[in-house]
Amino acid sequence: MNLPQRLGVLTSGGDCPGVNAVIRGAVLGGTVAHGYEFVGFRDGWRGVLEDDLLPLPRRAVRGISGLGGTILGTSRTNPLSEGGVEAVRGSMRRHRLEGLIAIGGEGTLAAGKALSDQGVNVVGVPKSIDNDLGATDYTFGFDSAVQTATEAIDRLRTTGESHHRCMIAEVMGRNAGWIALHAGMASGAHAILIPEHRVALKQVAAWVTSARDRGRAPLVVVAEAFTPEGQDAPYAPRGLDTFGRPRLGGIGLALERELQQLTGIETRATVLGHIQRGGEPTAFDRVLATRLGMAAVGAAAAGRWGTMVSLRGTEIVNVGLEQALGALKVVPEARYREAAVLFG
Amino acid sequence: MNLPQRLGVLTSGGDCPGVNAVIRGAVLGGTVAHGYEFVGFRDGWRGVLEDDLLPLPRRAVRGISGLGGTILGTSRTNPLSEGGVEAVRGSMRRHRLEGLIAIGGEGTLAAGKALSDQGVNVVGVPKSIDNDLGATDYTFGFDSAVQTATEAIDRLRTTGESHHRCMIAEVMGRNAGWIALHAGMASGAHAILIPEHRVALKQVAAWVTSARDRGRAPLVVVAEAFTPEGQDAPYAPRGLDTFGRPRLGGIGLALERELQQLTGIETRATVLGHIQRGGEPTAFDRVLATRLGMAAVGAAAAGRWGTMVSLRGTEIVNVGLEQALGALKVVPEARYREAAVLFG
Amino acid sequence: MNLPQRLGVLTSGGDCPGVNAVIRGAVLGGTVAHGYEFVGFRDGWRGVLEDDLLPLPRRAVRGISGLGGTILGTSRTNPLSEGGVEAVRGSMRRHRLEGLIAIGGEGTLAAGKALSDQGVNVVGVPKSIDNDLGATDYTFGFDSAVQTATEAIDRLRTTGESHHRCMIAEVMGRNAGWIALHAGMASGAHAILIPEHRVALKQVAAWVTSARDRGRAPLVVVAEAFTPEGQDAPYAPRGLDTFGRPRLGGIGLALERELQQLTGIETRATVLGHIQRGGEPTAFDRVLATRLGMAAVGAAAAGRWGTMVSLRGTEIVNVGLEQALGALKVVPEARYREAAVLFG
Amino acid sequence: MNLPQRLGVLTSGGDCPGVNAVIRGAVLGGTVAHGYEFVGFRDGWRGVLEDDLLPLPRRAVRGISGLGGTILGTSRTNPLSEGGVEAVRGSMRRHRLEGLIAIGGEGTLAAGKALSDQGVNVVGVPKSIDNDLGATDYTFGFDSAVQTATEAIDRLRTTGESHHRCMIAEVMGRNAGWIALHAGMASGAHAILIPEHRVALKQVAAWVTSARDRGRAPLVVVAEAFTPEGQDAPYAPRGLDTFGRPRLGGIGLALERELQQLTGIETRATVLGHIQRGGEPTAFDRVLATRLGMAAVGAAAAGRWGTMVSLRGTEIVNVGLEQALGALKVVPEARYREAAVLFG
Repeated sequence: MNLPQRLGVLTSGGDCPGVNAVIRGAVLGGTVAHGYEFVGFRDGWRGVLEDDLLPLPRRAVRGISGLGGTILGTSRTNPLSEGGVEAVRGSMRRHRLEGLIAIGGEGTLAAGKALSDQGVNVVGVPKSIDNDLGATDYTFGFDSAVQTATEAIDRLRTTGESHHRCMIAEVMGRNAGWIALHAGMASGAHAILIPEHRVALKQVAAWVTSARDRGRAPLVVVAEAFTPEGQDAPYAPRGLDTFGRPRLGGIGLALERELQQLTGIETRATVLGHIQRGGEPTAFDRVLATRLGMAAVGAAAAGRWGTMVSLRGTEIVNVGLEQALGALKVVPEARYREAAVLFG
Repeated sequence: MNLPQRLGVLTSGGDCPGVNAVIRGAVLGGTVAHGYEFVGFRDGWRGVLEDDLLPLPRRAVRGISGLGGTILGTSRTNPLSEGGVEAVRGSMRRHRLEGLIAIGGEGTLAAGKALSDQGVNVVGVPKSIDNDLGATDYTFGFDSAVQTATEAIDRLRTTGESHHRCMIAEVMGRNAGWIALHAGMASGAHAILIPEHRVALKQVAAWVTSARDRGRAPLVVVAEAFTPEGQDAPYAPRGLDTFGRPRLGGIGLALERELQQLTGIETRATVLGHIQRGGEPTAFDRVLATRLGMAAVGAAAAGRWGTMVSLRGTEIVNVGLEQALGALKVVPEARYREAAVLFG
Repeated sequence: MNLPQRLGVLTSGGDCPGVNAVIRGAVLGGTVAHGYEFVGFRDGWRGVLEDDLLPLPRRAVRGISGLGGTILGTSRTNPLSEGGVEAVRGSMRRHRLEGLIAIGGEGTLAAGKALSDQGVNVVGVPKSIDNDLGATDYTFGFDSAVQTATEAIDRLRTTGESHHRCMIAEVMGRNAGWIALHAGMASGAHAILIPEHRVALKQVAAWVTSARDRGRAPLVVVAEAFTPEGQDAPYAPRGLDTFGRPRLGGIGLALERELQQLTGIETRATVLGHIQRGGEPTAFDRVLATRLGMAAVGAAAAGRWGTMVSLRGTEIVNVGLEQALGALKVVPEARYREAAVLFG
Repeated sequence: MNLPQRLGVLTSGGDCPGVNAVIRGAVLGGTVAHGYEFVGFRDGWRGVLEDDLLPLPRRAVRGISGLGGTILGTSRTNPLSEGGVEAVRGSMRRHRLEGLIAIGGEGTLAAGKALSDQGVNVVGVPKSIDNDLGATDYTFGFDSAVQTATEAIDRLRTTGESHHRCMIAEVMGRNAGWIALHAGMASGAHAILIPEHRVALKQVAAWVTSARDRGRAPLVVVAEAFTPEGQDAPYAPRGLDTFGRPRLGGIGLALERELQQLTGIETRATVLGHIQRGGEPTAFDRVLATRLGMAAVGAAAAGRWGTMVSLRGTEIVNVGLEQALGALKVVPEARYREAAVLFG
């Protein structure tokens, strides 16, 4: 008698709404449609390296598609450290795993590619609230982050109008300004500031003043990594993160100070921060994430290792992991110009 | 000195979240980028036929992208009635309008095509919470309807679990089951029933019983126009609507009765109804609608009359109105099968 | 060495947001502050009668204060059936329970009183989304039901305005119109119809017409048990519920028909139904429910059996169970008149 | 023929959800029930001093009960400046106003008292998202602030759990910790830190470590004005506000640094900031605010000048303005101890 084939699932990198829906889609779809058994590794690659895992029968994923976070935990452990590849192979052999479903961002997909090049069976599911991964129209989690940011900015707007203030909302976006672009357009911002498109503070002040002169309470949405033209580096990093990269933040408060001085308009900044990463995914993200999870297992069943699943139009397709790597997907100049028409 | 060119805007058919964002995108984009002036017709084609209109300066569209409904009002008036085309021409001449931006569903786009064929300048913006119009990946309003339905179904689920009941949610979908498909997948339904795919009640009862036997509170999401296999017509129409078509509704309550009898499980149906049509659009719909409005004016400025704007992947494109007409966009069998994997 | 004292917890009757927060408040508060151990009975009194229970250590109630439904399940089983009291005593003796924390509505509190009169140790926690229990300012669950109804009615309003329609929202309220009163006032209804205050349909039509004449889209909020003046019984009961009582519903659709005829205004009704009972409790209800759960255990620890906990102003107090029984708490005439000022 | 009597309405101080519902309740209630006419002053006392006002017919307050902010604008202008009282009298005389409905916080109520003592007719409506005004069970706006904070903290919690981090949410509360107390209890915080109750950082670290040791992701909710025991002043004021008071903020980030060091647990703080002040009021606040507005006009009609309206249990009552002044309403020690039972 044949034993059922087995896959491992892991979730890596920053929290992102929809991860649980991917897990559920993979486990439920894989169990029902392909007869797979699943195990889940705890805390991403750490669980693989340290052989820390749990069984994932279908009842373990009941009702989780709407839950924020990840039932498997996450970490920023890199599997390509010294001895890592052997440890991954060992764990897969011990637990009789045909392959891994790796749900993660750029680092995880790059690691998946490197493992795959060394013969380890991996299918990737791209994950980024920032929507900055290539080869997919959208990453899951992005829609939820934009929705949360937009609801928060809607709240700020009413206060701006009551007080005739300029309100600034700092949103996430380490490399790309997608959240700022979408949340800013959705909330009717008078200026959207993104890292891809440098703008001088004087220009921002001019937009703010012009909105005020039309009787509006100016609203500025700024991505955390925006750097004004003529300035060397993002504002005020606060220490280092667990990768040793500078932690961003500070542009919101810096703009508060600078714009108030340049325009004479009372200005208040709010840093939305981690509320953009957590909590229940939108219905859009739940559907996208569920389909990605199911498709990832389908790719595994078809032996398409070294690939990842992605959204193209309304279809879920399968592309080589290398396509998501290299250049990040940034906001094209045309999309910024389109949004900027509405500033004025 | 040249007078500025002028466009008329009208909104027609059923209410849909995001209409105001289209109006704002068109007026603000058209004013700033193209120097247009705008007028708005009240209550769709009725306003055109009866010359009932108001100026739409940019301040009239301030802050409306997040508002539900339409500031212009809507109706189901058909402009192709006796003398209609002449009335449209007359109104456009009197108000010196170069063309019309017509925001509406299948009826409006068909009327726009007919008018266009007779030399009236029209650009269409497809609108349908049901997402059943062709030639666009999604219609605006659909995402909001799915989000609202999903939040409501999430609420029903907890009650089902507390009481060990089968809960049924009837959602909109006169011709196509897109809302049921997406809201059902997002909420983890154990059966999704859509008009495109007939299923016998015994099969539904089997899905319900199987869910109960796995310890779950069965959850059924049904589109209003679903007809069980072996039955002649949708359930229990309640009178006629303003088009003289039977008003649907009733399948939810009919299923409540039938499934309770077939399964012996206490069953409760909720008809979500008009809450899916109204209220604030999601950020996704606000962005999509804003971009569609801007692109519609861009099409007008480029003289691409007889076209409509639509979403393809992440791009807004321009297609002939005829492409949206003819066959409605229904749920493909592959998408239904994909969702059905999760029922079992 | 003394064994820790033990209490049983049960949840009975209709689903209600906040039940899990009561359970958590009781278990966590009782464990930490009083050293109690807890067991939970499954599905209300059924679990007591059938000895179906589970241990409730503090980790079982982790993170549940925001979850809808009840982790213990519920039923409408009545413990006062033949042999019931002896079964309750037997179960308590077998599991060494000092007393019961009974979370439920009028039926459960009445049963608690009867049991208490026969020497069974019970503390009640009053539960009703309808807010119709006496001796407490509010019942938990009511605020969540009103919030859910208000959000839904806000959605209906925009559709009414777009179409110049009269929109009707039917809300819960079997004996009292509290949900209709609060949700109607919160959403700016032009007529609120409650069972406590009969109004002739002509009067309702006059309010609707007057709102329309002022340029508004008329909005009517009606409690399921409202009966128009001059009529014998609530509309169109659909079968019987599990108590053998007629299931209400139907007034919304009846009003749709009648008001459209009386006013000539296109009218649409939506029956909000079970979405008012389920889903996440509001912060208000989570705080109230948590405090009630803690106070119930405090009452048990103080030996105040035969009492229930209730809200008075901002304080949680302890009153005799008999105070909640007898007359239901209905909407006083003064509160209705206050709301009615805003109809006109 | 008698001219109708007239009242002026003004809104003063920080933004607060529900102000528009008060205005609507006052204007609609006053117009319908008492035949009053209304004018609104722009930007609080500034409008009175500078005679900047607009008519407020009932159609001006249509549909605003659910809107955040204030349609009248607000400012922190103090009417008791040099010549202020005479300016107030002059404006009231010129516009034939019998009295003023002043909606504001402690400063406005104190000014109202001083004006009243000098014979100016004022009725106050207490307003504070912080809930720190005496003589009323709750101020309107507080429930909305708690709900917004709780939803945000729910989002933070999932991220904390995915990453095994300690999450800190800094909420508003300049003088009193009511928002922290309620949002912390609603979200199941493992530590709640308020200005009324000083706690040493070591104690906070012990709570955090204990939660981690029980397998939880520690969650800390801190009011902006909390000062740890053994420290002289609140953390890191950022400049001065428009009153010349230090702007608070900084405790969240300071705790992030300190707790991470004391516990070795990765810790992240989010400052919720202005999202707590803006946006749509909850249904609870809409009902409360509407009733307060109606009651304020009722007090004016009864000649009860020098009073304010307040909530007692479920009733709106009328108390002397002096009762709200003097001591702020802080969190009683018993309420803090009740909440603290759940930390452990």
